Amino acid sequence: MKRAEELELALEPRPRNLTLQRWLCGELRAAILAGRLPPGRRLPSTRDFARQQAISRGTVVAVYDQLIAEGYLSSTTGSGTTVAAALPIAVTARRTQAAQPAATGEAVNHARLSRQGRLLAGSPFLSREGMALGRPFSPNQPDLSAFPHALWQRLSNQHSRGLRPDDMGYGEPAGHLPLRQAIAEHLRYSQRISCHAGQVMILASAQQALDLCGRLLLDPGDTALVEDPGYPGAARLFALTGARVQGVPVDRLGLCTEALPATPDVKLAYVTAAHQSPLGGMLPLERRLALLAWAEASNGVIVEDDYDGEYRFDGAPLPAMKSLDRHDRVIYLGTFSKLLFPSLRLAYAVVPEWLADAFASAISLTTRHAPIFPQAVLASFIAEGHFARHLRQMRRLYGERAACFQHECRTQLDGLLTVLPIAIGLDATALLPQQADDRAVAAALGQWGIEARPISFYGMGQPAPPGLVMGFSACGEALIRRGVATMVPVLESFGGSASAPGNAG
Amino acid sequence: MKRAEELELALEPRPRNLTLQRWLCGELRAAILAGRLPPGRRLPSTRDFARQQAISRGTVVAVYDQLIAEGYLSSTTGSGTTVAAALPIAVTARRTQAAQPAATGEAVNHARLSRQGRLLAGSPFLSREGMALGRPFSPNQPDLSAFPHALWQRLSNQHSRGLRPDDMGYGEPAGHLPLRQAIAEHLRYSQRISCHAGQVMILASAQQALDLCGRLLLDPGDTALVEDPGYPGAARLFALTGARVQGVPVDRLGLCTEALPATPDVKLAYVTAAHQSPLGGMLPLERRLALLAWAEASNGVIVEDDYDGEYRFDGAPLPAMKSLDRHDRVIYLGTFSKLLFPSLRLAYAVVPEWLADAFASAISLTTRHAPIFPQAVLASFIAEGHFARHLRQMRRLYGERAACFQHECRTQLDGLLTVLPIAIGLDATALLPQQADDRAVAAALGQWGIEARPISFYGMGQPAPPGLVMGFSACGEALIRRGVATMVPVLESFGGSASAPGNAG
Repeated sequence: MKRAEELELALEPRPRNLTLQRWLCGELRAAILAGRLPPGRRLPSTRDFARQQAISRGTVVAVYDQLIAEGYLSSTTGSGTTVAAALPIAVTARRTQAAQPAATGEAVNHARLSRQGRLLAGSPFLSREGMALGRPFSPNQPDLSAFPHALWQRLSNQHSRGLRPDDMGYGEPAGHLPLRQAIAEHLRYSQRISCHAGQVMILASAQQALDLCGRLLLDPGDTALVEDPGYPGAARLFALTGARVQGVPVDRLGLCTEALPATPDVKLAYVTAAHQSPLGGMLPLERRLALLAWAEASNGVIVEDDYDGEYRFDGAPLPAMKSLDRHDRVIYLGTFSKLLFPSLRLAYAVVPEWLADAFASAISLTTRHAPIFPQAVLASFIAEGHFARHLRQMRRLYGERAACFQHECRTQLDGLLTVLPIAIGLDATALLPQQADDRAVAAALGQWGIEARPISFYGMGQPAPPGLVMGFSACGEALIRRGVATMVPVLESFGGSASAPGNAG
Repeated sequence: MKRAEELELALEPRPRNLTLQRWLCGELRAAILAGRLPPGRRLPSTRDFARQQAISRGTVVAVYDQLIAEGYLSSTTGSGTTVAAALPIAVTARRTQAAQPAATGEAVNHARLSRQGRLLAGSPFLSREGMALGRPFSPNQPDLSAFPHALWQRLSNQHSRGLRPDDMGYGEPAGHLPLRQAIAEHLRYSQRISCHAGQVMILASAQQALDLCGRLLLDPGDTALVEDPGYPGAARLFALTGARVQGVPVDRLGLCTEALPATPDVKLAYVTAAHQSPLGGMLPLERRLALLAWAEASNGVIVEDDYDGEYRFDGAPLPAMKSLDRHDRVIYLGTFSKLLFPSLRLAYAVVPEWLADAFASAISLTTRHAPIFPQAVLASFIAEGHFARHLRQMRRLYGERAACFQHECRTQLDGLLTVLPIAIGLDATALLPQQADDRAVAAALGQWGIEARPISFYGMGQPAPPGLVMGFSACGEALIRRGVATMVPVLESFGGSASAPGNAG
């Protein structure tokens, strides 16, 4: 009997990094789960087992105790230690073979997902941005080397020295109050938005804000309007709700408000008024007013995504649409990813009064709240004036780079590429000759180390001019010159020199 | 003509904190939007206007330029500066009166929300936890004063000194690789989970993990199983998808697996196997195996929420269900909110191989990724062994407090309250006499400064014993004694002394 149990265990040799006790527990568990030690089987006494394995009895006692606590073994006075009788080992073992093969393959995996899950699984493009840093002309990139690291570090140290239990527990779902106050104050000045801290919601990203907007406002069958071409992240998030996502044409000024539909099922319109993504237009005042009037007439909500409008090169930023919002219909989104640095993961929404409680509840249930520590550091950074100064400095720096980029393109790429006037933001929009395939051009540029995002990447079905979105703001002037020079032979190989008009602006 | 324009403007006096230029821009905008300066109206020349207002001509030029850029004014050679003709002022102004009154009131606000939005808006309970810190016996609270602040600070400083542009850009959606590796390594040892970093997803909270699980796996009409009584946060999140949320009865050992339904529309079962919330059971091995067999038979996924299972007082933590998961059907959730501190906002999910890509895509689209800096600090904290040491120390501390709490309750509250044996976690489960109204008891205790969460708070429809969930882990022994003493007269006033059995364990 003892010999038989010895043989049945068929212990694997002990790996060096495991203690004796841990190894023996694992071996006994494996033997029980595999059915090699069946339910009810009596184990040797601790004394005998210790002798058989030439280990101390104390170790065997600890192993038996652990496995009794875990339910693998039972101990009854008189009959000693046995494998627990109630374990449904057979059921588990039997199913093992049948199920394994079915669980492989992409198609099978997707079949296990919900409709929303399949949409989520099919959205891999955003992660790509992690790779593109440092290459010209990767879009949406602030110049991280120009960030005031030492200052940020000093503020961080101040706050972490004072990290008291009060700041380590749960915080307010809508965000750290000093940060919300600092943002409201900044927006009053910078964007002329009259709002109070109670309307400011702190989030991890504009993506999270768009996700919550969609979930709070859209039912399956509703319609959400997006710009076409426009930011695909917004369209994909709204589609998760089961809403129909409809593109509205865009021209070089921005959203064509005369093309807004009047259907009553439209609940939401998404607009990049300050700097249309990707065509670069700044929505004119009359269209802003028309869009607000449309929202009022159709009982809709406008989501104004101001991702880089703070960087207007020839003057102060234009007032946000939210500043004209007398009927509480505009949700204004801003992000510190582009204004400070992406890994900070802080953004905000300014929501209408009537939506504030619901928005905070939604944050609370789906994520609880943003981390308090970076919020506290950022609040000081804004309140002490560093944020406004940093924006001024970056506005000047990016303005110089915009001019340099435009000059280099005009000089080196004339006839190959038309850079539209750059008045704002981190990225330029450049048009290719009409027959060009901008995906092919972007792919070819990529092979030469040049990042450029094709305008067709932003297309939702409406015809869009072929072109490229290129970020200049993270590139020094030497890199801009070199990068543009690299583009010349690539664009020439696409034979565009005949049809592109001269560079504008 | 000039005099008339002067009158029409009806300028408000300039507030002290506004520059002349900013004030004048604002006044002109307001006059135009209100229709007091109608579209097409000619403005005085800059020279005349400066003289009229007794300000410098340069200021007026700057104001006109700004408003031309914003689209409020137009400038044409010959006819001077006029209010822009195309502005749809009338449309906006007309709608103002009609719409305003309809936009007030809670009911009207909720009518604007989607079905999901109304569910989100109706979930305010989670924010309450922000308030309860420091009061005995608030549940789910680690002792923040016992956290190794100086050590954490040192690691933070090391990382922030090295904050290079590489760490400031966008990161991987699934999380910072060193942290994912450190967690996988920790789980191999602590929970005996065989997983690799590719299966570890870094999230802001267990809430976010549950939200994404629901969205990825549940379609409207599907069924999600939850424990009843059980954690309401999970049930509310699953309900957002339109799935039917069905409670499965729980006894003192945990989920009653013999009551699991066999219907084919069940996609997901949520279980707190290590420490059932709220009844405190540790799911026995045979039920774990039965639940795994059920998942295999019904093609379902198990979400194992291990919120405080690391704190097992009489030995190492029991292996997680995920460690028994041979068919890749278990999603294991852990959170650093309870193990370190809540405001850190980091949690993780260990997902099956087949779900890893979809999960990462879902994070990417809905939030992008967690902040990199705290992830890097936490990765060092784990990899350098501080995490395991902290857990050992807290396990000892909380174990002493559990024993103290149990002793005080047994001594002072005998016949009033039955504290179930505490083997694990931050909270105790205490049963009240059978006829007691636990919400009333909790409310009465609250008036005396004692936090206790009624078991009926966790109820989903099945009958549950009246009782209280009380956190002992953040309370020193003196506070425990005082807190329990405070409870005596309150519980006596509910007249429970006759029917409650003696205190267990």
